[in-house]
Amino acid sequence: MTHPTIELAKELISRPSVTPLDEGCQELMIERLVKLGFRIEKLHFEDTLNFWARRGDQAPVLGFAGHTDVVPSGDPAKWHTPPFEPTIIDDHLHGRGAADMKGSLAAMIVAVERFIAEHPNHQGSLAFLITSDEEGPFVNGTVRVIEHLEQRQEKMTWCVVGEPSSTNHVGDVVKNGRRGSLTGELVVKGVQGHVAYPHLADNPVHKAAPMLADLSSKHWDNGNDYFPPTSFQIANIKAGTGASNVVPGELDVMFNFRFSTESSSKGLVQRVESLIDSYGLDYDLKWTFNGEPFLTDTGKLLDAVRIAIKQVNGQEPELLTTGGTSDGRFIAPTGAQVIELGPCNATIHKVNECVKVNDLIQLTDMYQGIMAHLLTE
Amino acid sequence: MTHPTIELAKELISRPSVTPLDEGCQELMIERLVKLGFRIEKLHFEDTLNFWARRGDQAPVLGFAGHTDVVPSGDPAKWHTPPFEPTIIDDHLHGRGAADMKGSLAAMIVAVERFIAEHPNHQGSLAFLITSDEEGPFVNGTVRVIEHLEQRQEKMTWCVVGEPSSTNHVGDVVKNGRRGSLTGELVVKGVQGHVAYPHLADNPVHKAAPMLADLSSKHWDNGNDYFPPTSFQIANIKAGTGASNVVPGELDVMFNFRFSTESSSKGLVQRVESLIDSYGLDYDLKWTFNGEPFLTDTGKLLDAVRIAIKQVNGQEPELLTTGGTSDGRFIAPTGAQVIELGPCNATIHKVNECVKVNDLIQLTDMYQGIMAHLLTE
Repeated sequence: MTHPTIELAKELISRPSVTPLDEGCQELMIERLVKLGFRIEKLHFEDTLNFWARRGDQAPVLGFAGHTDVVPSGDPAKWHTPPFEPTIIDDHLHGRGAADMKGSLAAMIVAVERFIAEHPNHQGSLAFLITSDEEGPFVNGTVRVIEHLEQRQEKMTWCVVGEPSSTNHVGDVVKNGRRGSLTGELVVKGVQGHVAYPHLADNPVHKAAPMLADLSSKHWDNGNDYFPPTSFQIANIKAGTGASNVVPGELDVMFNFRFSTESSSKGLVQRVESLIDSYGLDYDLKWTFNGEPFLTDTGKLLDAVRIAIKQVNGQEPELLTTGGTSDGRFIAPTGAQVIELGPCNATIHKVNECVKVNDLIQLTDMYQGIMAHLLTE
Repeated sequence: MTHPTIELAKELISRPSVTPLDEGCQELMIERLVKLGFRIEKLHFEDTLNFWARRGDQAPVLGFAGHTDVVPSGDPAKWHTPPFEPTIIDDHLHGRGAADMKGSLAAMIVAVERFIAEHPNHQGSLAFLITSDEEGPFVNGTVRVIEHLEQRQEKMTWCVVGEPSSTNHVGDVVKNGRRGSLTGELVVKGVQGHVAYPHLADNPVHKAAPMLADLSSKHWDNGNDYFPPTSFQIANIKAGTGASNVVPGELDVMFNFRFSTESSSKGLVQRVESLIDSYGLDYDLKWTFNGEPFLTDTGKLLDAVRIAIKQVNGQEPELLTTGGTSDGRFIAPTGAQVIELGPCNATIHKVNECVKVNDLIQLTDMYQGIMAHLLTE
């Protein structure tokens, strides 16, 4: 099995690029892209390596986005094979990052090489937006590169993110959007005291309990064709000194919304604050805006993706917006149509991460087909 | 000012007997009691020193109960005077334990000395039950001594506990009972998961919130003439890993009841469990029984206490059952009438603990009066 996508994927996996390390992965990609006539712009912010590569000056711009960093392997002894020694067993390529997302990066590079060999004078432009911090704090990665591009009004028309979108075989699921994410850190204030003198204390857990019951049973929206209903989850709650005879003075609650395009950060903030206000509590509430939801529901990109997948395996992809966040949330607000297409995600972030060899080969063909449909007549 | 009660209180305070240490306090008391003809039984359990002293073989038995241990001083730099150097400032004796309860111990000893000097052939018996673990885990203190006495059917008829019962001046309040205390440790079980996949998780905070709201707003009883209504307080609550994207798998709640004689441990356990059951939760609940409530509402002891106080200051004490637990809860179940009479409690467990010199002198007279009324014609 010596498909060039597999060879490149192995080279990338053998570099232990745990966030925010890159360990030479980007240089490997840049070498190949330079040979194809891409102009490379290295964008290093703090501990994070990023690059923007573009071939051509014209619109429309079809970009591939992805990350060279991987999550930690955990205890290597729990793996069947060493996590940073790519190994093929039963037609699966094993190693940390095989599915998330070094296999996709390799498929993108090989697909671009083949496409340019066939269409050296393609229409529009091709681009790559690659970061070494997608799995970490995502402060100095895609979000900074996008800021940089926006400052000079350079935009992608279409963007294919290599996140592992598939369930059983590559291309069975395309993510055409993602839910938004919003976190609240609530402090409900009471008055600490001794349980033997309850009239001198004011228990914030008691005061907050009906409000929390209300908040957690609230129906936020119905979702829509592409999004499940908005979900609210209390992730952390804490009050008390540990002693059984002290009424706590404060209650800390951290909650998170994953929300559909039927809601917005602003709207959810208003609804939560007015609900809490209606209980007459003394509280502080700090919000963290992790990203608005995005949706690419029609247009040339989705058409091209559907055709490209069908040409490879004869099937129609399912369009989903489920799962965690991705860097697509930073790209979509620029106006780009964004979809995510990559291999199966069953083993990502786990021990024995692996990907079907044949899926990476098919993924290469799909990426190539997308370029053909969008940048040639 | 050289009243013998103050001199003895100073000697006791100068011994830094932080729970479970005794630092020679009990030997000091024992020396004095031996001279008065008390038979001493030292009862050392694990790290705790206790003694039982008795003068006379006949019933009725009037006992004085107390503890030589004190709570830690905290940072001595925060005190106006060194916590273990007894100092008189403005007619107040300062030092850790001055009010809780070395001042009372000194008053008991001096009162007994004076009473026996006047009535060497008093009726019945006098007794002391002293421990060095009242402020700590109270495992090897009074509870063990009582077990020991019960095994041989030796009982007190009346017991005066030296806990600081007073509010503005000594004797203005007598505690004639205490609330019961009951602690529950509840674990509500859910299913941990990623907030992005709420259908795969089951949030125990959401499931428990309506039950906690119900539990914390419940009316348990109305109390009675001597007890305020039973009070329920959630002392600790905790769920979550700290991360904002993980649905917690378990919710831990620790709560405490302080309950009147209108309720019982058994009844409260039943009511709480049936309330939780009504919410269909999967849970574990561990109970700790800290003590049933007790009440000494009529009888010779209370009469003697009232008369003794009135003879000293002309006033009628208020009878209260408020405040924390005391070792009285271990003595009352033996059938003894139990009251608590000691100095003002405003500074106990705080920096600059102190007691009015004159209150300790009056307390000595009150204790002496109680003996006179109960053990002489």
